[in-house]
Amino acid sequence: MSTHLILLAAGEGSRMLSDRAKVLHEIGGAPLFAHALGAVAELEAPGERVLVVGHDGDNVAKAAAEIDPDIRIARQTEQLGTAHAVAAAADALADADGDALVLYGDTPFIRAETLEAMAEARAGGADIVVLGFDAADPGRYGRLITDGDRLERIVEWKDASEGERAITLCNSGVVMAGTGTLFDLVAAVGNDNAAGEYYLTDIVALGRERGLTAQVVICDEAETLGINTRAELAAAEAIFQTRARAELLANGVTLVAPETVHLSLDTHIGRDAVIEPNVVFGPGVTVESGARIRAFSHLEGCHVGAGAIVGPYARLRPGAELSNGVRIGNFVEVKNAEIGEGAKVNHLTYIGDASIGDGTNIGAGTITCNYDGVFKHRTEIGRNAFIGSNTMLVAPVSVGDGAMTATGTIVTKDVPAGDMALGRAPQVNKAGLATRFFEKLRAAKAAKSKE
Amino acid sequence: MSTHLILLAAGEGSRMLSDRAKVLHEIGGAPLFAHALGAVAELEAPGERVLVVGHDGDNVAKAAAEIDPDIRIARQTEQLGTAHAVAAAADALADADGDALVLYGDTPFIRAETLEAMAEARAGGADIVVLGFDAADPGRYGRLITDGDRLERIVEWKDASEGERAITLCNSGVVMAGTGTLFDLVAAVGNDNAAGEYYLTDIVALGRERGLTAQVVICDEAETLGINTRAELAAAEAIFQTRARAELLANGVTLVAPETVHLSLDTHIGRDAVIEPNVVFGPGVTVESGARIRAFSHLEGCHVGAGAIVGPYARLRPGAELSNGVRIGNFVEVKNAEIGEGAKVNHLTYIGDASIGDGTNIGAGTITCNYDGVFKHRTEIGRNAFIGSNTMLVAPVSVGDGAMTATGTIVTKDVPAGDMALGRAPQVNKAGLATRFFEKLRAAKAAKSKE
Amino acid sequence: MSTHLILLAAGEGSRMLSDRAKVLHEIGGAPLFAHALGAVAELEAPGERVLVVGHDGDNVAKAAAEIDPDIRIARQTEQLGTAHAVAAAADALADADGDALVLYGDTPFIRAETLEAMAEARAGGADIVVLGFDAADPGRYGRLITDGDRLERIVEWKDASEGERAITLCNSGVVMAGTGTLFDLVAAVGNDNAAGEYYLTDIVALGRERGLTAQVVICDEAETLGINTRAELAAAEAIFQTRARAELLANGVTLVAPETVHLSLDTHIGRDAVIEPNVVFGPGVTVESGARIRAFSHLEGCHVGAGAIVGPYARLRPGAELSNGVRIGNFVEVKNAEIGEGAKVNHLTYIGDASIGDGTNIGAGTITCNYDGVFKHRTEIGRNAFIGSNTMLVAPVSVGDGAMTATGTIVTKDVPAGDMALGRAPQVNKAGLATRFFEKLRAAKAAKSKE
Repeated sequence: MSTHLILLAAGEGSRMLSDRAKVLHEIGGAPLFAHALGAVAELEAPGERVLVVGHDGDNVAKAAAEIDPDIRIARQTEQLGTAHAVAAAADALADADGDALVLYGDTPFIRAETLEAMAEARAGGADIVVLGFDAADPGRYGRLITDGDRLERIVEWKDASEGERAITLCNSGVVMAGTGTLFDLVAAVGNDNAAGEYYLTDIVALGRERGLTAQVVICDEAETLGINTRAELAAAEAIFQTRARAELLANGVTLVAPETVHLSLDTHIGRDAVIEPNVVFGPGVTVESGARIRAFSHLEGCHVGAGAIVGPYARLRPGAELSNGVRIGNFVEVKNAEIGEGAKVNHLTYIGDASIGDGTNIGAGTITCNYDGVFKHRTEIGRNAFIGSNTMLVAPVSVGDGAMTATGTIVTKDVPAGDMALGRAPQVNKAGLATRFFEKLRAAKAAKSKE
Repeated sequence: MSTHLILLAAGEGSRMLSDRAKVLHEIGGAPLFAHALGAVAELEAPGERVLVVGHDGDNVAKAAAEIDPDIRIARQTEQLGTAHAVAAAADALADADGDALVLYGDTPFIRAETLEAMAEARAGGADIVVLGFDAADPGRYGRLITDGDRLERIVEWKDASEGERAITLCNSGVVMAGTGTLFDLVAAVGNDNAAGEYYLTDIVALGRERGLTAQVVICDEAETLGINTRAELAAAEAIFQTRARAELLANGVTLVAPETVHLSLDTHIGRDAVIEPNVVFGPGVTVESGARIRAFSHLEGCHVGAGAIVGPYARLRPGAELSNGVRIGNFVEVKNAEIGEGAKVNHLTYIGDASIGDGTNIGAGTITCNYDGVFKHRTEIGRNAFIGSNTMLVAPVSVGDGAMTATGTIVTKDVPAGDMALGRAPQVNKAGLATRFFEKLRAAKAAKSKE
Repeated sequence: MSTHLILLAAGEGSRMLSDRAKVLHEIGGAPLFAHALGAVAELEAPGERVLVVGHDGDNVAKAAAEIDPDIRIARQTEQLGTAHAVAAAADALADADGDALVLYGDTPFIRAETLEAMAEARAGGADIVVLGFDAADPGRYGRLITDGDRLERIVEWKDASEGERAITLCNSGVVMAGTGTLFDLVAAVGNDNAAGEYYLTDIVALGRERGLTAQVVICDEAETLGINTRAELAAAEAIFQTRARAELLANGVTLVAPETVHLSLDTHIGRDAVIEPNVVFGPGVTVESGARIRAFSHLEGCHVGAGAIVGPYARLRPGAELSNGVRIGNFVEVKNAEIGEGAKVNHLTYIGDASIGDGTNIGAGTITCNYDGVFKHRTEIGRNAFIGSNTMLVAPVSVGDGAMTATGTIVTKDVPAGDMALGRAPQVNKAGLATRFFEKLRAAKAAKSKE
């Protein structure tokens, strides 16, 4: 049976002190709400996804569509409680069979395994499945009153007896039920409470009144961590990073100083790759086996082939595709460019909107002049070419296989294979001119200091 | 009533193993002694500041004058104890009414609120106010013997009874009193002790003998942290950084990895700005709301406008003034230059002693040649100009609004608005020359390897 | 009496999930096995070194020869236990008198002082010396059963009684004995145990049977730390870094943010040098007193003179020799080059295979074009020269004392002292051409967006 997701992302998150919706703040290079989408995508039978948006809803919806083009958007125009938010998703799932799972956009750490366990509990016959956790410090969380596996009811802290407060099994707020059941129960929830809000929690009591069974699945408390402030966001990022680094180490990647490597949710690094200190992996990076990413490198949206050496101080931007054995050196920027096997771009270079053939060497200070102020153009360089230092490649332009450009040439027309392009003002040595020039400057300085 | 500061900064700090005076070592980009100046400046009624210098006194005095041009310098030629050091300040405050507060140049964490509480105790009638703290491990600190709010006396550890040693309220050494009273008491302090030193502590007993009242104000132990070694300096820097980062987070700034961001005492960052990992803020930086400082950027003495994007690998040096929406990219250095709204300087560029108009685009590899070996000159670029890649701007020179420079042009004379400056040796393709050149080189290599 | 080292480095280290031998993984920029070599080299009477290799043996032997050209290599073709590994070293030490010390290639933290204590125990008459440690959590380590200083026997955990398991003094596996004694005993070790392996541990019992005395030397547990996984490797690197940083602080070096500075085993930094945040020291770096290494710098195999200022974003590669007071600025790479006293290389420059005289200034964007595609060539620049921005120095080439190159000159022939080299296409301003060009582009853009 499919599990449909109702992801609540309408809250303002005022404690973030931000103009952006809370769920748009990021961990591991991905917005908070995207982490729940990732966990659900790993389920055996993922169904539809409905994102309930409210505050800053257009921006949230737009960001969601970039990550999951088929996501359905439900609008909650007023924020009247979690049951009210879930009800807002009813139309979007009107045609959906199967189960509905309610997750929260600001709770990024729930694991797919946990959700799978909830799905299994449903498959085992429970009408409602509630996710609980054993709290180290239960504080004012709602308590889960159970009888064996069976959830009797959820008691809010303020309504709990002394004995009930001693219970450490707490309510995460995550719920799964049959889609129809969920919306029926949610529709019945009232707001007769101090806050005047519609609480999703109430569906357990309502369900029990109707003879439905409720069951608890227990997860680690760490999975239920919610984010409300920038400090909590930073702490959650640190947790994410610690886990992601440990996973790489466990897979046979060397991180020389793991605590200085910044990873994204989708970073892939192959066995025996070495990551030196102070490397940032933005979203969308794959590094193949045996590659070395040197210190102070910054990678986003790129692919690094096996055995390649990148950095130090290399910046690989989206669309950088490095074949095996490529060498990218210091103060080099590569964007939207394929670099062929064994090619070298070692110093102070900008390669953008280009392709470079196998074995080609790009000299220091080379620039692909890809932008004319309005349009971007491509540079094509063949195999085993040699681009001299400070060559300007004014795109669109091509350099053939085995061709060469002399130092300082401004290449505006194509260079055929095997040719050498040359454009250079000849050097003239003016005898004694430096001496006279310095004397003049020094005299001017002396005059100035006398003033 | 004004509170005059006597800041003791004469000690050698031999455990620093340094040729520089201890108080010149820095935390948060500011010398140790400057932190106390900052706290005092926040008082409701700050008065004169007297810095008592001794070891490396000229350098300390010079550094102090840069931070506080009106600071008075007192010389303590021999270091004979804290009372002796305070006495050295008597002449500098001969004309001063009000209170005198004694602080230490190597104790950077005392908060303005604490000093304000001392001033209030004075206003409430205490003749002498001593700052104490509850020590987690009192060790050999002097103990404060109190009767309610009232300070009976200060007992040195070696003179204390078993019962007195059980007291955890310890002496910080920070003292406030009427200026006249303080100098009278200090003049009466003797040096009849094992070390032969004049201890400021003794003024409490002397005051009590004269019928003066003494009161204790209590602060956090962390405020009294003194610095004696490089390791303690590093630990104090870490404490400073942790607090400064937490303050930014609390004010609505995103620090993706707070522990990798290095801040200065005077760093200002606006709400919803995002600071990526590995950013260093030297002294004198302001970042406006919504700006993004990308990874591996280094900022000093600069201003970043709202919504600007800086880095990765951007270096902003003193005098860099970025208007709103400016884009500074990788391997770019900006010094003493105003960059207009929405202007872009994206790659491998040096902009120094320049102004760049709104909407102008600076191509990769551009350099303002501002230095002739003796003097520096300015470059002025107008609005909506387009500077082609690898343009050399030989200052003094100007480029008008909407003007353009072709790739590789060396601009030595002004470019009028709307004109295009062009200077380039034409490209010639020498047929087959690259092939012949490589053959020759390979043959040479083969010959060499046979040798 | 000399102490010969038998360093066991034959294991596969399968839990590293690596194609490389475990001992080739690095800490502090040096392979794991090299740390033991360093400790032994500090002994009063170091003798021969024998490295017992097996898995990936050729690569291990090659790496060892680079570090210690006189090291002797012994091959253990099958891995049948530690005694078997030691036996493999017998031929290599056939001609050796003195003591033999068995260390492990994956145990990098044993200190020279500890080994010296073992040598002293031998000198004091003990036939066999075993290194033990008091384990915080003894777990399944073998226990050392002692009678005073005297080691009675080593009991494996599985064979130990309840009482013996309560002993916290554990076996490190490190052993010292007379060379002949050791090989005699090792030859007598059998493999009649569950694993069918030859255990070095057994030599104590065998020795006692023969009337030999055994003694325990105790070290810190931290010294015995072995490395089996990438996570343990990273943890050991962190331990190494923490110690190395503390040592620098203790020697009067300022590390502004010690936890962001990455050091190598052989990093030397002088008193009063300041290391800013985020600096990486690869192998072979010496920094003299009072130098400042600014943030985001990367140094390998180089020497930085007193009072020099390096960075931010400076990359010093092997062979960079900076004299006193040199200034290397941002986005500058220096390789195999001597830089004379007070010379400046401030921005966006590549200096490779060069020498630069005292007081010379290298302009922004300068490149030494040292590579012709096959060979590398040298650039020689004299004293007090001025290299204009974006000068290309096509090596081999020289620039004399006090000479100058104009901005953008491509220097292909030598510049005599005092001359100015100049090569530049003159600038032409095409009236209104920029305006017409932009109009055309905008029209093209508009047409395109209509399509």
